[in-house]
Amino acid sequence: MPAGDDAALLASIKHPVITTDTQKENIHFRLDWQTFDEVGQKAVEITFSDLAASYATPLALFVNLSIPSHMTDDMIEELYVGINAALNRHKAALVGGNISAGLDFSIDLFAVGEGIPNLFPLRSAACPGDGLYVTGPIGMARAGLDCLMQNETQFPELIQKFTTPIARFDAARILAARGVQCVMDISDGLSGDARHIAEASEISIEFDPAGFHIDPALLAYCGKHGLDPRLLMLSGGEDYELLFACKPEIFEQIQKPLPEAFCVGRCLSYAGKPIINLPEGIRSFQHGEKK
Amino acid sequence: MPAGDDAALLASIKHPVITTDTQKENIHFRLDWQTFDEVGQKAVEITFSDLAASYATPLALFVNLSIPSHMTDDMIEELYVGINAALNRHKAALVGGNISAGLDFSIDLFAVGEGIPNLFPLRSAACPGDGLYVTGPIGMARAGLDCLMQNETQFPELIQKFTTPIARFDAARILAARGVQCVMDISDGLSGDARHIAEASEISIEFDPAGFHIDPALLAYCGKHGLDPRLLMLSGGEDYELLFACKPEIFEQIQKPLPEAFCVGRCLSYAGKPIINLPEGIRSFQHGEKK
Repeated sequence: MPAGDDAALLASIKHPVITTDTQKENIHFRLDWQTFDEVGQKAVEITFSDLAASYATPLALFVNLSIPSHMTDDMIEELYVGINAALNRHKAALVGGNISAGLDFSIDLFAVGEGIPNLFPLRSAACPGDGLYVTGPIGMARAGLDCLMQNETQFPELIQKFTTPIARFDAARILAARGVQCVMDISDGLSGDARHIAEASEISIEFDPAGFHIDPALLAYCGKHGLDPRLLMLSGGEDYELLFACKPEIFEQIQKPLPEAFCVGRCLSYAGKPIINLPEGIRSFQHGEKK
Repeated sequence: MPAGDDAALLASIKHPVITTDTQKENIHFRLDWQTFDEVGQKAVEITFSDLAASYATPLALFVNLSIPSHMTDDMIEELYVGINAALNRHKAALVGGNISAGLDFSIDLFAVGEGIPNLFPLRSAACPGDGLYVTGPIGMARAGLDCLMQNETQFPELIQKFTTPIARFDAARILAARGVQCVMDISDGLSGDARHIAEASEISIEFDPAGFHIDPALLAYCGKHGLDPRLLMLSGGEDYELLFACKPEIFEQIQKPLPEAFCVGRCLSYAGKPIINLPEGIRSFQHGEKK
């Protein structure tokens, strides 16, 4: 703990929202693709994204590091530069953590936030008749990852979406103000995360790929490489946009302050399977998590 | 998160006290010495011990696991048996966490507790004139570890102190009721942890080894192996008893409900070094932590 004490005392929290995430080298990030600064920033943003999806404001962060023997103090310092940059962006404080030696380079983060009264969004709150929406462009982070893997340097805005996502607290505030009850962040990919909502809500979801807004950079990348951008949007993960379900008339109000939001499908009464019309060959972006 | 959601919403916490700990195979535990059940129990107790030392009641625990490929589901299940046993003992709930593949078998724990009003014990709160006390027997866990390393099977009560310590919430309540302001748990060993108090409080500490209460099992073990029990008590870590400083007249009140507590030294005005009379050859029990 920073003050040398065993635990951190925080100010009163009326609606404590708490989340944890693990980021591991060669599973969640690769140091030939990202700087230590970027790894640190992204680890915090990913963890905070779960708070955004819960309508919580980040207060405090704990970071446990596992450091292999070949890592230098300079590398660890640069990692903390990134961690602190993300903390400053969201006005949260680093309040504790441990550093231990290990075989893995691994970052365990634990974030504490203040939720809002009487509204804790759940995956299980989607209803038949709701539309399914995203708060902004998707598929770009996965295209950026593919650029890194292929040494494709023509699309820096895609790579940036992969290396330095920003948790969408701005969009979360707009959804919260309209009382949207079903929200999650898109970490695994639209198709997989929509399936989580369908299963938790006991509904079926029908995608509307024809209505997807395709980012111009993603379109250009897919054009150059002969790919279907809608498939990347359905399967690609790590965008950290918010996926939400609400009545279409509520979405109309949301879209005014959030013009980049768009509809990706609709929620139906359960019709035998969670996703009605998943194109062939779609598989959610996976990290090698054991569970 | 257990409910399949991104974050956990807890009930209001007036005085949130939060702590984190990391337990790694071959640094903090060895599977030829401890069962998975014991590893799980101890990981929770060690983490909760920091809450006890902060006068906080444990509410919620998050556990992130890093699991190497050779570990089976049965092993992970047995680990959770231990984690749940410790949680039940202290009436706290497992509310989230991740499991990821890794080279290390590593357990990252984050514990959330409810502190008490207007009293958050600090290492920096010891004053000249205070006595320095422990809440119970020390040195036994280190002797138990030595028994495991030497295949010495004659002292199961020492081994048990090493494998299954219990966080001293009972003793913490007694200290809190008397307003004791300087408390920490003895994880690294009396000499090293007393040094933390001396440095944080800008005082000097003089040990009184002649007054140490020596546990009969520790005495027998030391007699058999030709060791000085007082050296083991000063240097041995992992007892997870509480170390505290207060006025001697306060300690008299504490000792009635806590007869196993005893005095280990006294706090003096700073006299050039934090520890006045450390016997030769004492080194705090170290884990190979990088910092």
